[in-house]
Amino acid sequence: MKKDLLKGIRVLDITQAYSGPFCTMHLADHGAEVIKVESLAGEQSRYWPPYKNDYSGYYAYLNRNKKGIALDLKSPEGKEALERLIKVSDVVVENFKVGTFARLGFPYEHLKELNPRIIYASVSGYGLEGPLASRPSYDLVAQAESGLMSLTGRPEEDPTKVGPAVGDSISGTYLSLGIMMALFDRERTGEGARVDVAMLDCLFSFLEENVMHWTINHEVPKRTGNYALSGAPWDSFKAKDGQFVVACGTEALWQKFCDAVDHPEWKEDPNYLTIPDRFDHYLGDLRDKIEAYTLTKTLAELEDAFVSHGVPFGVVRNVPEVVESEQIARRNMLWKVFDPGFGEEIRMPGSPIKVQGESDDIRCAAPTVGQDNDQILTELAGFSADEVKAMREKGSIA
Amino acid sequence: MKKDLLKGIRVLDITQAYSGPFCTMHLADHGAEVIKVESLAGEQSRYWPPYKNDYSGYYAYLNRNKKGIALDLKSPEGKEALERLIKVSDVVVENFKVGTFARLGFPYEHLKELNPRIIYASVSGYGLEGPLASRPSYDLVAQAESGLMSLTGRPEEDPTKVGPAVGDSISGTYLSLGIMMALFDRERTGEGARVDVAMLDCLFSFLEENVMHWTINHEVPKRTGNYALSGAPWDSFKAKDGQFVVACGTEALWQKFCDAVDHPEWKEDPNYLTIPDRFDHYLGDLRDKIEAYTLTKTLAELEDAFVSHGVPFGVVRNVPEVVESEQIARRNMLWKVFDPGFGEEIRMPGSPIKVQGESDDIRCAAPTVGQDNDQILTELAGFSADEVKAMREKGSIA
Repeated sequence: MKKDLLKGIRVLDITQAYSGPFCTMHLADHGAEVIKVESLAGEQSRYWPPYKNDYSGYYAYLNRNKKGIALDLKSPEGKEALERLIKVSDVVVENFKVGTFARLGFPYEHLKELNPRIIYASVSGYGLEGPLASRPSYDLVAQAESGLMSLTGRPEEDPTKVGPAVGDSISGTYLSLGIMMALFDRERTGEGARVDVAMLDCLFSFLEENVMHWTINHEVPKRTGNYALSGAPWDSFKAKDGQFVVACGTEALWQKFCDAVDHPEWKEDPNYLTIPDRFDHYLGDLRDKIEAYTLTKTLAELEDAFVSHGVPFGVVRNVPEVVESEQIARRNMLWKVFDPGFGEEIRMPGSPIKVQGESDDIRCAAPTVGQDNDQILTELAGFSADEVKAMREKGSIA
Repeated sequence: MKKDLLKGIRVLDITQAYSGPFCTMHLADHGAEVIKVESLAGEQSRYWPPYKNDYSGYYAYLNRNKKGIALDLKSPEGKEALERLIKVSDVVVENFKVGTFARLGFPYEHLKELNPRIIYASVSGYGLEGPLASRPSYDLVAQAESGLMSLTGRPEEDPTKVGPAVGDSISGTYLSLGIMMALFDRERTGEGARVDVAMLDCLFSFLEENVMHWTINHEVPKRTGNYALSGAPWDSFKAKDGQFVVACGTEALWQKFCDAVDHPEWKEDPNYLTIPDRFDHYLGDLRDKIEAYTLTKTLAELEDAFVSHGVPFGVVRNVPEVVESEQIARRNMLWKVFDPGFGEEIRMPGSPIKVQGESDDIRCAAPTVGQDNDQILTELAGFSADEVKAMREKGSIA
């Protein structure tokens, strides 16, 4: 009998787009009862590509394993329903612009009045304080303002953004972590909490050692493209039929590298003895010699050679290659579900948190708009079937 | 009186480099007692730049708030000490290559014998199963193999790696999240857990909607540089004195954008009416017109214009600009501590998880090698002072 780590935890998920839904997805994937609260029009990511059969794959991925209700939070009935649900929930999550949820009638003080044990968690562009707190943000803005863009790309080219919106996914994951810390504390103290996470702070904490270059030595960190000072060679190269990377972080790996590329004589070359030596002779010399060799080989040949010599190696794969790989399948990193929105079975990334003995599969597809209104408003919020019907006729719920 | 959410939780941190130490740093920052276990030579990141006074800023950042002991885990005395500590700990974290910790004498079965409530967490390149499980990996390899590189950079250029090692920081953060879920469950069921996280899986789960393009439509996702289909304009541009980004994700934002750049007539232009229209006329037309305007303005002028019109805007900042910004200061995202390794006060990124009423500051600098051996081996592991002395003379501890 498999278990779910978060069984019995109820999360009111008043989020949209990416950061908030990604946060609550982590909780839902591990067994929390996540109730997504949408406007009657449905949330914005329902209108984001990719589409099939007029339904959004973006929305379907991030909202699996959740229940869904649709309320007009500007109507008295919608507010009343949300208040009743706050009373019977453990966690409230939102990712409105700072101040919006309070203006809707739900400042933290009121949430605590309704439920002293509530954990109220929000993610925003800049967090609750500071001169930029009230500004709108998006992932692209956070990538620019955090310094991450300045560190990504080739030195001779403009700063480059990370393709996927890591400002959202990183802040959403940090918010889940903060919620779990608060839930753990509450289990022992009975106290609720207010958890506040900002995209800017989260990306700032992901800059690795770059902040330290400035704070201890007043050096301005620069982007270096695909090679890094961590080792040499530590870079991407071209093969006959594609690109790959190798990462030689130690002298022992360099020795193995030389054997793997049929150049054992490089091991004795005084220009290449240590990582600093090789770095001094990398651009315009060692790098070109390596690629002159690898361009004569296929990826499969290079993979054989590097892997058999124990050199860290990877192919630069496109998304389909990764999705269809045996490794991803064996890790159960693709979950399948019949999604009524598409009218067919779809596949999506699973949870990367693998816990022995825990169930590791999807329980249900993402909800349609207002799918669980009747059940949740009667069973959890205590409205009668007639009251729900009246709310619907008034246009306060879907 | 401020509290710490994880007070009373003891973590044995047998990790090195980046992913593992970043995981345990999150736990230490929120009050867990993290005991870093190193070899007598100290862990590898002690030898990573930036340096000052022969000490590593890389190590100092990731290991603040931890205690440190140094044991030779190949010696009988070192193994005995670790066994005794496992008996009195809540969590064990390691990031060896898969199988190494078991070969040292610590398979999960043995950890459970020593302490049935133990939570054993590990992060590796590929996780515990699958054809690649035993392969060495590094961030660069994970960025290539996960598809992330294929999605980053300009379409006419080669795939680009993210500057900082996000394979490590994302997997380390996911591992903390898994540990917190397991700790929460243990609080309610008394049961320990085995948590297993892979860099490949973690980056795969961060590809945003790209996996869905393939799984539902068999489209191969491509990198698009700094612009995105999410809106138009949604891109980076040059000003007189630097670069900035704007993100117009809705039609309302586009209207505001036109006013901000003194081109209200664009609002009526049939080529620019909707996001798809603007996208069709973006490269070679709208993009150039926008930049022709922004090149005549300073960043400060553009910031005024866009922010006053409510358009999401950000400057592409370098690291020093971010570090010294008022926003980062107001969010308490720079922590200061006197570090004996440097012999001076240093600054480093703080925790981005802000919880009202929790202490939000550094408690102590990263440990020197074996700094807490005497205290921990006598007080927690139950060795006598004479036994510790004998172990040290034998070279089994630092």
